Amino acid sequence: MMDRKKIRWNGWGWVEAHDDVSGRPELWAWLARELGMPSLLATPARKLGEITLPESRLRDEERGKFIAMLGAEQVRADDYERAFHALGRSYHDVLRLRAGDLSTAPDIVLYARNQADVLAVLSYASERGIAVVPFGGGSSVVGGVTAGHGKFGAVVTLDLSLMDRVLDVDRVSMTAEIEAGIYGPALEKALQAQGLTLGHYPQSFEFSTLGGWIAHAGAGQQSNRYGRSADWIVSATVATPRGMLATDNFPASAAGPRLKDLFIGSEGAFGVVTQARVRIHEAPAKKIYTGFLFKDFESGAQAIRAAVHEDVPSAMLRVSDADETRFYRAFGDLGKEHGLKDALTERYLAAKGLDRAPAAMIAGFEGDTVHVAESQRAFGKIAKRFGALSVGQGMGKRWFDGRFHGPYLRDPMMDRGVGVDTLETSTMWANIPKLHRAVTTALHTAMAETAPRPGARGIVMGHISHSYPDGASLYFTYIFPRQLEGEIAQWRKIKAAASDAIAANGGTISHHHGVGEDHLPWIGQEKGELGIAVLRAIKHTLDPNGVLNPGKLIPD
Amino acid sequence: MMDRKKIRWNGWGWVEAHDDVSGRPELWAWLARELGMPSLLATPARKLGEITLPESRLRDEERGKFIAMLGAEQVRADDYERAFHALGRSYHDVLRLRAGDLSTAPDIVLYARNQADVLAVLSYASERGIAVVPFGGGSSVVGGVTAGHGKFGAVVTLDLSLMDRVLDVDRVSMTAEIEAGIYGPALEKALQAQGLTLGHYPQSFEFSTLGGWIAHAGAGQQSNRYGRSADWIVSATVATPRGMLATDNFPASAAGPRLKDLFIGSEGAFGVVTQARVRIHEAPAKKIYTGFLFKDFESGAQAIRAAVHEDVPSAMLRVSDADETRFYRAFGDLGKEHGLKDALTERYLAAKGLDRAPAAMIAGFEGDTVHVAESQRAFGKIAKRFGALSVGQGMGKRWFDGRFHGPYLRDPMMDRGVGVDTLETSTMWANIPKLHRAVTTALHTAMAETAPRPGARGIVMGHISHSYPDGASLYFTYIFPRQLEGEIAQWRKIKAAASDAIAANGGTISHHHGVGEDHLPWIGQEKGELGIAVLRAIKHTLDPNGVLNPGKLIPD
Repeated sequence: MMDRKKIRWNGWGWVEAHDDVSGRPELWAWLARELGMPSLLATPARKLGEITLPESRLRDEERGKFIAMLGAEQVRADDYERAFHALGRSYHDVLRLRAGDLSTAPDIVLYARNQADVLAVLSYASERGIAVVPFGGGSSVVGGVTAGHGKFGAVVTLDLSLMDRVLDVDRVSMTAEIEAGIYGPALEKALQAQGLTLGHYPQSFEFSTLGGWIAHAGAGQQSNRYGRSADWIVSATVATPRGMLATDNFPASAAGPRLKDLFIGSEGAFGVVTQARVRIHEAPAKKIYTGFLFKDFESGAQAIRAAVHEDVPSAMLRVSDADETRFYRAFGDLGKEHGLKDALTERYLAAKGLDRAPAAMIAGFEGDTVHVAESQRAFGKIAKRFGALSVGQGMGKRWFDGRFHGPYLRDPMMDRGVGVDTLETSTMWANIPKLHRAVTTALHTAMAETAPRPGARGIVMGHISHSYPDGASLYFTYIFPRQLEGEIAQWRKIKAAASDAIAANGGTISHHHGVGEDHLPWIGQEKGELGIAVLRAIKHTLDPNGVLNPGKLIPD
Repeated sequence: MMDRKKIRWNGWGWVEAHDDVSGRPELWAWLARELGMPSLLATPARKLGEITLPESRLRDEERGKFIAMLGAEQVRADDYERAFHALGRSYHDVLRLRAGDLSTAPDIVLYARNQADVLAVLSYASERGIAVVPFGGGSSVVGGVTAGHGKFGAVVTLDLSLMDRVLDVDRVSMTAEIEAGIYGPALEKALQAQGLTLGHYPQSFEFSTLGGWIAHAGAGQQSNRYGRSADWIVSATVATPRGMLATDNFPASAAGPRLKDLFIGSEGAFGVVTQARVRIHEAPAKKIYTGFLFKDFESGAQAIRAAVHEDVPSAMLRVSDADETRFYRAFGDLGKEHGLKDALTERYLAAKGLDRAPAAMIAGFEGDTVHVAESQRAFGKIAKRFGALSVGQGMGKRWFDGRFHGPYLRDPMMDRGVGVDTLETSTMWANIPKLHRAVTTALHTAMAETAPRPGARGIVMGHISHSYPDGASLYFTYIFPRQLEGEIAQWRKIKAAASDAIAANGGTISHHHGVGEDHLPWIGQEKGELGIAVLRAIKHTLDPNGVLNPGKLIPD
């Protein structure tokens, strides 16, 4: 079982994680200059001990019933548990948590031990009109687990993390049946002990669960090889207020629409995925992550498209735009001595035309030794065709080693008056340049308009990290000086500007983060009126009283 | 536009198709022996001119309204049109058509010219309580287009075949927007003129349409490379009685469940797909189809599984069981002189242990020259590992040239008192041998039990033709002497025995044919009670009066 106290309740990741950046003043000075600020501020988070949580609205009788159902150990109401489960880990969530706003703390936290527990909780809560927020790792960055009680008298969070067993491994069919509450590392440890892998490594890998990956339609960093959850899920077992629903367990079927598809991205609003059968692979004998420099983002994108269309297998092809490339280079290099080698490098890059707006790419290949070598060679040729310089595996190794570290940068920034958020979308290849420009511009404009002082500004960086035959994802990180008098309003303005730009320019409101509360205003436009009516009808059938995760996925 | 009169109204395919088998008495004598019959019978079909069609139940006012809506040319009520659209082309359908049972002839046939036409028809029909059967090519083999009026006063067939334009080709994103009524050959002709392909070639390719492929969740013969319709569909535009619904047009999305998934396999019960965006490919520079002989079906299946798990790309890997291998060999060889070469072949096969229950495989590879050569070489190694003998491209070419001919064998058999039907399923690799045995046994038993005379019996042959990481399809053809006193009851018994065996042994009731009327009794078990409730809720939302394709997909 995962000890919740080891995980930050108001920030990202392990409480004990090493802070790489706080002791590097040159970095913060650089960031202040980039943001057009004279200096950064001190904006520490409030401590849990100083915050008074709202009284639990649950009646004694209801609490007693849950204890009888699950056992006293599985029913928690202490401040840490309630605070930990109050919100997810979006920028908006963390802003509120750091300010000590625990108004969304659940009235009680319930830990289910098995499917029967889940079913009993849902059935009782539906009958009593108690809202239920299903909770895996709670790492949602779109407001997917906010424990608001909405129109209901009380809200319970239903934590699945005790349900963490690998139930069956079928080595012939290469599938495994696994309980939904298992965290990424435990899942991979169990499979890799048998030489197998699921290969789903989102950036939240350490703090997210199988059920969450399915419920928010996620994609791991190596989705080019292992697929999104929509690709690797074979079947789901789902508890609903009306009983259990098990989707079929076939490799393919023409027997009507496939019910599993309804639960991919269902965000706990239709039911709680209790276990799933997933496609697994032999653990790769070889992993190679290697770097390239392209003269610009567009060339890098074209190389990825060519690789996909020319059937060159990859685990990951990730190209940063010029601003992201510049940012990470600065972040990595700041405080280091520049010597002869760097001067030579600069001159070499200039000669190659790679000094103006270079775009860094990490190309990853996984599998058996022969296939990996073939793919690497084939992609190398394509990269060369698009004018890239191969910079070797050093850059790839740095990316790989730090692949789960990015989110840790947020907390030290938040401590210094700096806001940072990410958002992502996908679009067709033909539309990638236009959407990239539109979102970048919208973010820059909104950050300038909401800046705390004249001349202050934000940073926008983007990359492609997931590719498909018809298009690719676009991922943006934006960093800005906070408007301390109205932090949430500032974020809402920036987020709305970017989301409007996405919707107006042919992008989806989310490629792998989900809808949650944050994207709810845009989902109606994306799904259409009849589409929303269909989603409501599905919800009403499975959750007639609407107690499941209210306020997420579907507008009321 | 496809001239309906060129297509048989009561059998398979072109009226003018060449009959390869009627002039081969030795073949029929062999078949009689195999079926344990002293001789075959003469059971000709009734001619359309001899059959009286039911009076149209449509009111003059309604007919006038449709003419005003669509133009008189698009509103047809002649006998050929009504007979052509009365049923699909399942064994059950053809039995009835040949017997002159046109009780399911639609009251009128409507040809839609565009989306507005479809919407107008659906809206009016819903308002007036007239059943609407959407119709593409009408090649359903599961009773998917039966024009029964059910609980409604009248039924119209809505034929989409005038909507056959390729609307847009995006060569950058490699997608195309195409109207749903286009037939396979017209679609491929338009794309191949630009060096492109969809690559969806079901056996019904010449007589089925894009909309049908989506609505019944089909798979082409080369689905290993080009995917099933569920894989290649990017977005669908759907007309419903409540208006238009356009699904999103993104390569991937985490913005809730994807609505396009609801229409894959929806069989016209939720709405009418009017156009779709699909993933396309460069037309392959190279196609190689080559043959192997395995010592048994199981070894062949294992070789396919190994190819999938070892990332060896293929367009098609198709292995026949011993009975299918024997049948096609006999069919091909009958009446030919056997000489020295054959004797030598037999001796060689015996020495290799390939003479007892040999299983023939066709392995197909498509793509650029280099990839095809690599894949062929890699698969050849795998086949060898599993004891196969490579028999070269002659067998592959014969299969490829005859890949749409199989269904034409049914009519001459039907003329001679012989019944033939096919069914298909899929299951996990670990379960393939068990399911193959169970269905084969169930078919043999049911055919013996329903045989017209003691000692008469059926033939069962099976193959794997579509493979996935976790499992594969199983396709069965069964041939039997008809019980002329109760042909439909006989078929029902055999079909039920096979379907029960599928349901009891971990198979889906259909891998690529669909549900229609024929599989309706098994869909409840496969989807579960809550699953059916969800499908009903979706239908009720989009088709509140239930006029769309009644009696298919979802039990009343």
